[in-house]
Amino acid sequence: MNVNNIDLTGYPGSEKIYIPGKMHDISVGMRQVNLTPTVSMINGERTMRHNDPVVVYDTSGVFTDPTVAVDINAGIPRLREPWNAKRDDLEQLDGITSEYGRERLADKSLDAIRFPVQHKPLRAKEGRRITQMALARAGVITPEMEYVAIRENLNNSDLGIESHITPEFVRDEIAAGRAIIPANINHPEAEPMIIGRAFSVKLNTNIGNSALSSGIEEEISKAIWSCYWGGDTLMDLSTGDNIHETREWIIRNCPVPVGTVPIYQALEKVNGRVEDLTWEIYRDTLIEQAEQGVDYFTIHAGALRAHADMIPERLTGIVSRGGSIMTRWAVLHNAENFLYTHFDEICEILAAYDVAVSLGDGLRPGSIHDANDRSQFLELDVLGELTRIAWKHDVQVIIEGPGHVPMHKIRENMDRQLSSCHEAPFYTLGPLTTDIAPGYDHITSAIGAAQIAWLGTAMICYVTPKEHLALPNLEDVRNGVIAYKIAAHAADIAKGHPGAEVRDNAMSRARYEFRWKDQFNLSLDPDRAKQYYVESHQGDDHFCTMCGPNFCAMRISQAVADDCAK
Amino acid sequence: MNVNNIDLTGYPGSEKIYIPGKMHDISVGMRQVNLTPTVSMINGERTMRHNDPVVVYDTSGVFTDPTVAVDINAGIPRLREPWNAKRDDLEQLDGITSEYGRERLADKSLDAIRFPVQHKPLRAKEGRRITQMALARAGVITPEMEYVAIRENLNNSDLGIESHITPEFVRDEIAAGRAIIPANINHPEAEPMIIGRAFSVKLNTNIGNSALSSGIEEEISKAIWSCYWGGDTLMDLSTGDNIHETREWIIRNCPVPVGTVPIYQALEKVNGRVEDLTWEIYRDTLIEQAEQGVDYFTIHAGALRAHADMIPERLTGIVSRGGSIMTRWAVLHNAENFLYTHFDEICEILAAYDVAVSLGDGLRPGSIHDANDRSQFLELDVLGELTRIAWKHDVQVIIEGPGHVPMHKIRENMDRQLSSCHEAPFYTLGPLTTDIAPGYDHITSAIGAAQIAWLGTAMICYVTPKEHLALPNLEDVRNGVIAYKIAAHAADIAKGHPGAEVRDNAMSRARYEFRWKDQFNLSLDPDRAKQYYVESHQGDDHFCTMCGPNFCAMRISQAVADDCAK
Repeated sequence: MNVNNIDLTGYPGSEKIYIPGKMHDISVGMRQVNLTPTVSMINGERTMRHNDPVVVYDTSGVFTDPTVAVDINAGIPRLREPWNAKRDDLEQLDGITSEYGRERLADKSLDAIRFPVQHKPLRAKEGRRITQMALARAGVITPEMEYVAIRENLNNSDLGIESHITPEFVRDEIAAGRAIIPANINHPEAEPMIIGRAFSVKLNTNIGNSALSSGIEEEISKAIWSCYWGGDTLMDLSTGDNIHETREWIIRNCPVPVGTVPIYQALEKVNGRVEDLTWEIYRDTLIEQAEQGVDYFTIHAGALRAHADMIPERLTGIVSRGGSIMTRWAVLHNAENFLYTHFDEICEILAAYDVAVSLGDGLRPGSIHDANDRSQFLELDVLGELTRIAWKHDVQVIIEGPGHVPMHKIRENMDRQLSSCHEAPFYTLGPLTTDIAPGYDHITSAIGAAQIAWLGTAMICYVTPKEHLALPNLEDVRNGVIAYKIAAHAADIAKGHPGAEVRDNAMSRARYEFRWKDQFNLSLDPDRAKQYYVESHQGDDHFCTMCGPNFCAMRISQAVADDCAK
Repeated sequence: MNVNNIDLTGYPGSEKIYIPGKMHDISVGMRQVNLTPTVSMINGERTMRHNDPVVVYDTSGVFTDPTVAVDINAGIPRLREPWNAKRDDLEQLDGITSEYGRERLADKSLDAIRFPVQHKPLRAKEGRRITQMALARAGVITPEMEYVAIRENLNNSDLGIESHITPEFVRDEIAAGRAIIPANINHPEAEPMIIGRAFSVKLNTNIGNSALSSGIEEEISKAIWSCYWGGDTLMDLSTGDNIHETREWIIRNCPVPVGTVPIYQALEKVNGRVEDLTWEIYRDTLIEQAEQGVDYFTIHAGALRAHADMIPERLTGIVSRGGSIMTRWAVLHNAENFLYTHFDEICEILAAYDVAVSLGDGLRPGSIHDANDRSQFLELDVLGELTRIAWKHDVQVIIEGPGHVPMHKIRENMDRQLSSCHEAPFYTLGPLTTDIAPGYDHITSAIGAAQIAWLGTAMICYVTPKEHLALPNLEDVRNGVIAYKIAAHAADIAKGHPGAEVRDNAMSRARYEFRWKDQFNLSLDPDRAKQYYVESHQGDDHFCTMCGPNFCAMRISQAVADDCAK
């Protein structure tokens, strides 16, 4: 379908399928790629052999379901609303409770850009522990847990592949803190997904306007577009005008978990004056966003006042926006980072909505030179300390990581993260393995992301070709997502994720048998593959323009196999 | 300059410099990137600090030297001609000696497409051992060896970086077979370069038409273009018409070593009928190409008759064109691969012109499924056996490697290659770490290439976005080269190649100080970086459109550093 002027028809030969749950009344959307038969001549007779379809992980939600008519102004279907309705630990509020949210709602001048539908927020009942972690620890297998267990198993049953991923296993991983399901009770539109190193590697995409750039409609398009190509989660990093309203539009139309960095909006509220930031403003921002449905918050609580003194050792100082803001605040006030000192209260708020915390690496290295330095690892130790506090509140935790890291220093990042942060899932930006290729940083970083994901990173944050230069447009988002789908899939294969190789094998078989359509349809980007082929294709399906008729290795190879079989 | 309708002006802020030799009368071309000064306000006064230029490895030859007027019809300057003239072990022939070469020369109908200048070929004097390996073993440091020793050392002396790379070290590595300088005495236009794991990682580019595609002019453009962006060697894989004449144009204008796969042309000579291939036709082809100046031949001598029986075990059979041709020949004739049985004679020919041999991996895996299987490694053992034979003739050897390999199987490739092939340099295609991303295989393979290069592969063969789909155009060549420059450079950093990080650090410093022009000029692709920036830039150099004025981490970070310094 076409939504918001973007074309979502690039997956030909595919159909949406739904797998039902066994424990809960759920059905899990997937994409099934149907293949053409293999045609061969056996003893002069034309013979057809059926090829099994290949089921692929699908992050596009209802946008690729032709039976659902999406209306952006109404938002996508609220999948988890009936699940929440069955719970006795949630209460519906009369309205939003944040001061800022109420202010915006009362402002008539915003009516023109406001999302048309208002939903009343849910919150935990007083004294109830409602997070996926709390429930897992209590032994409960939630619908979300069964959902992700089904979702992680592709093509397994048919092919006799053994999978360790059962609902019970999901529950145990979440209880142990080794995995999270970011699923704010106020974002029922999101399809549950799991982030943890025992599961398939996930990728996050970043969108968001700045004071100088794009508007609401463009950001919605980018959000849908990134889900369409394969983004597993979406961070809205907007820092410009109307952040609150933009976010509402995105969340109501987003089939994947949404993350934010609340300090950005808090800073906008004080007109960009770092010194004017207060805990109260930040606290109100957390509630505002939690009630909108943000699924995870990046919180730079580990960048301490003492770390500031180490900055002069670095070539590129602090490159995390949140880290630089909080460090500056701490220096200006000569006080400890208020996100650190108020971390218990933060967790109480998060726990009431099941917002996960993504502990920000405010001191991640911004250059090869600064990788693995003492400020980076000192902060990591603080993140480990904060992890324990969050877990005390049953708040789900992931840990953010670098950044710019040369290949030979990647493993140390992974090893230290696991030990310092008690095996909480690692979520890294890249890492970029060299600094010298602006314009191609989706590649410099995919190289690092593939390696760190193989070593155990649970989610990798995409980098687009525009990194360091400009904000990404739609085409950059597509290029960034595909580069990271490659890195994630390469890591899944290397990790031995159950069934990961099925798609590769189907592709290779299609290649060997010159089934071009199947090759396109099995691709991460069928549109692109087909376009390149069609531009130079000349009619004969049994060789291509690369080698010409006499030099096709696969054709000659088939002749050899035929000869040997005689 | 503009040559052959391609624009070679994309390296602004750079100048060509030449470093003289100390032992020989040589001068080594490099590119120096000049930087702007750092401007800062100290106590209210505008202060400028000089930034040292950064010297980068330069494969573009005279095409980026404004003092040289290149005429494609005359060929580029013959750098090594005077070096050869001083040698007493070479003789100049009266004319070319291959039958086919003479035939083509006599054919008036080819005058229109023939390269206008004829050079008489050089050959070893009877009984003389003339290869770089022979000379190294005899203790000689050739001009080529001193040249590469200078070329490998960038920015070292100024910055006090210790480098192990001396002319003596180069000689010893070549004598041991751990490195090669591909430098046919008949390709004096090429600037010497070294391939070995103790040196910077090199990248090869492939060009070449097929029966269905481009003409001579386009191939020359691609050749120059690939050198311009950073290709260290160039393989001409043409299989269409006028291979002989196309190659002459390319070699006469190519500042980097040129490789070919002679069996391709041999097969054209028998009109594509594999069964009609003979040792005599192949032998004549070797001489024809050696006298034109081809610097290294890919020879699929390791794909034996016995291996053919293992093909049915594979998902994608044989994907090497040369491997499939020789296997088919062996099966059809029920005889051993004639490249294997005639390998001693092949080496005698190569030794007479100092053509290096690149032992082809005819059985490289063409899919994740087939990676590291027994036919692949059995062939590798044969390549090790052939290496010893080549070395007996003082022929320089590199070993070709896969292909498609998942990350967790990459190390085994490197380890086995080193042990099976006695540390001869490894030269790999990719490897591609997943099969499912046609249209993006420069990325699937850069991920693998970076890793295997870090582990010790000396040269990586680029893959363009069109791999598996079509032949690359100019833009694809650029994208493929840059992806592989990234992989090679990331590996150089990880390996600790002397001075590799200097460019990254200069880039990072420019980034931190908002010296945008320097960032562009230090990039692998300054054009692209600048284009992306300019498209969205809004006037203020001290922040950019990504974050806007209040959210620039680097600006805030500098403020923190200033505060701390007070």
